[in-house]
Amino acid sequence: MITPEQVWQTVKAIRTHNPLVINITNNVVTNTTANALLALGASPAMSHAVEEMDELPALGNALVLNIGTPERSYIESMFKACETATRCNIPIVLDPVAAGMTRLRIDICTRLLDSFSMAVIRGNASEIMALAGEKSLSKGADSTNTSNEAIDAGKFLARQRKTIISISGARDYITNGEDVLTIDNGHPMMPKITGLGCTATAITGACVGVCSDHLLAAADAMAIMGICGEMAARDAQGPGTLQLHFYDALYNLDRASVQAMLRTHG
Amino acid sequence: MITPEQVWQTVKAIRTHNPLVINITNNVVTNTTANALLALGASPAMSHAVEEMDELPALGNALVLNIGTPERSYIESMFKACETATRCNIPIVLDPVAAGMTRLRIDICTRLLDSFSMAVIRGNASEIMALAGEKSLSKGADSTNTSNEAIDAGKFLARQRKTIISISGARDYITNGEDVLTIDNGHPMMPKITGLGCTATAITGACVGVCSDHLLAAADAMAIMGICGEMAARDAQGPGTLQLHFYDALYNLDRASVQAMLRTHG
Amino acid sequence: MITPEQVWQTVKAIRTHNPLVINITNNVVTNTTANALLALGASPAMSHAVEEMDELPALGNALVLNIGTPERSYIESMFKACETATRCNIPIVLDPVAAGMTRLRIDICTRLLDSFSMAVIRGNASEIMALAGEKSLSKGADSTNTSNEAIDAGKFLARQRKTIISISGARDYITNGEDVLTIDNGHPMMPKITGLGCTATAITGACVGVCSDHLLAAADAMAIMGICGEMAARDAQGPGTLQLHFYDALYNLDRASVQAMLRTHG
Repeated sequence: MITPEQVWQTVKAIRTHNPLVINITNNVVTNTTANALLALGASPAMSHAVEEMDELPALGNALVLNIGTPERSYIESMFKACETATRCNIPIVLDPVAAGMTRLRIDICTRLLDSFSMAVIRGNASEIMALAGEKSLSKGADSTNTSNEAIDAGKFLARQRKTIISISGARDYITNGEDVLTIDNGHPMMPKITGLGCTATAITGACVGVCSDHLLAAADAMAIMGICGEMAARDAQGPGTLQLHFYDALYNLDRASVQAMLRTHG
Repeated sequence: MITPEQVWQTVKAIRTHNPLVINITNNVVTNTTANALLALGASPAMSHAVEEMDELPALGNALVLNIGTPERSYIESMFKACETATRCNIPIVLDPVAAGMTRLRIDICTRLLDSFSMAVIRGNASEIMALAGEKSLSKGADSTNTSNEAIDAGKFLARQRKTIISISGARDYITNGEDVLTIDNGHPMMPKITGLGCTATAITGACVGVCSDHLLAAADAMAIMGICGEMAARDAQGPGTLQLHFYDALYNLDRASVQAMLRTHG
Repeated sequence: MITPEQVWQTVKAIRTHNPLVINITNNVVTNTTANALLALGASPAMSHAVEEMDELPALGNALVLNIGTPERSYIESMFKACETATRCNIPIVLDPVAAGMTRLRIDICTRLLDSFSMAVIRGNASEIMALAGEKSLSKGADSTNTSNEAIDAGKFLARQRKTIISISGARDYITNGEDVLTIDNGHPMMPKITGLGCTATAITGACVGVCSDHLLAAADAMAIMGICGEMAARDAQGPGTLQLHFYDALYNLDRASVQAMLRTHG
């Protein structure tokens, strides 16, 4: 079960320990995900230089992979980084951006999952369904399915790949293949900001970096995203102001807000 | 002739149909142009992975090419993407960023234009003059000429390349080689935000994705840019707040604002 | 000695002459550093395409190199660009991002410094100490040492490499190996925005592009950063609003603010 106190302890641990999150991510969100990690209290490192991937992941508390712009050099770096992270027991979080959109993307994900063990895979419904072998087409980075349609796919994938699956949507579902946690926070304007899904994945990396129960860590991340999104929406006139206030909310998030705002079921 | 109703119908069509705009763009504006497309109601996909360019453009309603950071892998992806888009009849919009600044840039543009048919080319005066073979040096991404100095070059280029030329500046000129539409909206602080020209091109992609009259579509895009820029400037204390409010304006743009604010001549 | 009038004259020169600053920088900050340069009054050009590096740097008033995402193609471009800049007498500014974090990064810096003469090297304490051969580990792009611990390393490096060393931190130190200027402006929330160090380096490029005394130019840049950071912090509720107001402050910076706010010692 996910409780406000669980979420808050993870936020506090991030601010106290400043986990170093190594990100090999797409070139749309390098800036915004680094800012979100900093605002929350984590330390980001962003790189896609294969020549340092025998060293860099070993320094981190988590490794985040995001295939949003799957150029060859990024992917080559991911495989090298996974080898290092696996050797050093660093948890890996994967964001299979638009996995169902092209053959290239599903191939990369399959090769990564066949080769390495992931702590968490966070995606939207279309992405999780595509990874589980179901037909669901991404539209750009956006899902064409709602998150509840992907629960079975998520549970199957969690068992198949021995990992945690985090499905984001109006309701977020987080599962280890047996248990399913849900988070109902968030705001309908959030999908109008590019890369908030990628931000959720980066923050999942920060949570996994301080909380060894990866099911709870993945749920904490979605709770932080959703609550901060709601806080940001209070003063937002559109997606521009929403994004801005979102960083401020990550920075200012306190125990009282988590306790008052967390909405979870089951 | 461009009318408020024409502009508004295009905005409405974007919000109804959410055209998927495939962008191979420079790594300065991947985030900001994706956000602008989302705020207006379109769906962006950003990638420069050549391995998926036999598939990705076929899914889109428009393909946008921007040569701002003309690294080899980006350019290779553009040629592959153009082949796919041409085969599938997807309109292509080209932004010849700083075309006159280096030999590399003019060479890339010439090769693209010799090989493929563009729906629209959107650039500033220096860029359009450079493409037409006239001497005009870009200063970074900025023009050293005013837009009216490029009208003849634009008309020549439109006829030569059988395309629409959209020249942005204090006054925007859009021409098919015969007719010239003008848009007088905008704000003098807009050039102090990096990549608003690139944003104009991305939004031209969204307009072309829902409006098959590419002359009108290209003018609609400049009208949307200019009107939203003016709306954003009302509350801006500088380019930081201007950019922020610009996204909000794209999101909130309504028929009444278009009717009250559109300024067009000829 | 650094005076308010010196800083202000440099700001004025940037706004009058709009120096073109060529940036080969990491893909986290391409957008934000271009925006900062524009807001202050400079003209940015961002590229990492090796094929134009025989031309592009020759057009600029300064060349800025930033190794934050040291992918092969970026580094190859830097070496080519340095050849051109050196041949054309264009000053080069280097940001050795996270130099001490991996072997790759220190190797790149060493090869650059062995091959070319830099006008200014700007880094945080860990980076400067790593370049001087001392042990100091970067945590992501963040320093694990305070700036005063790096003064001796900075002076040594300035003499060894015949350059200006600019060490940023709560107090900034700028040295030619003999004299040390200090700037005490800034705000503790600034490190919560990604890439403000990279922005300091880009602005150092703008200052070097208009002020041939590179010791003063490097100090001017840190003064501009710190003062604008303080101005921005007045209205900031968190790092999101801070970043936004920072661009506005660069745009609105005036003589009275510089005179009232500059804090310098020795």
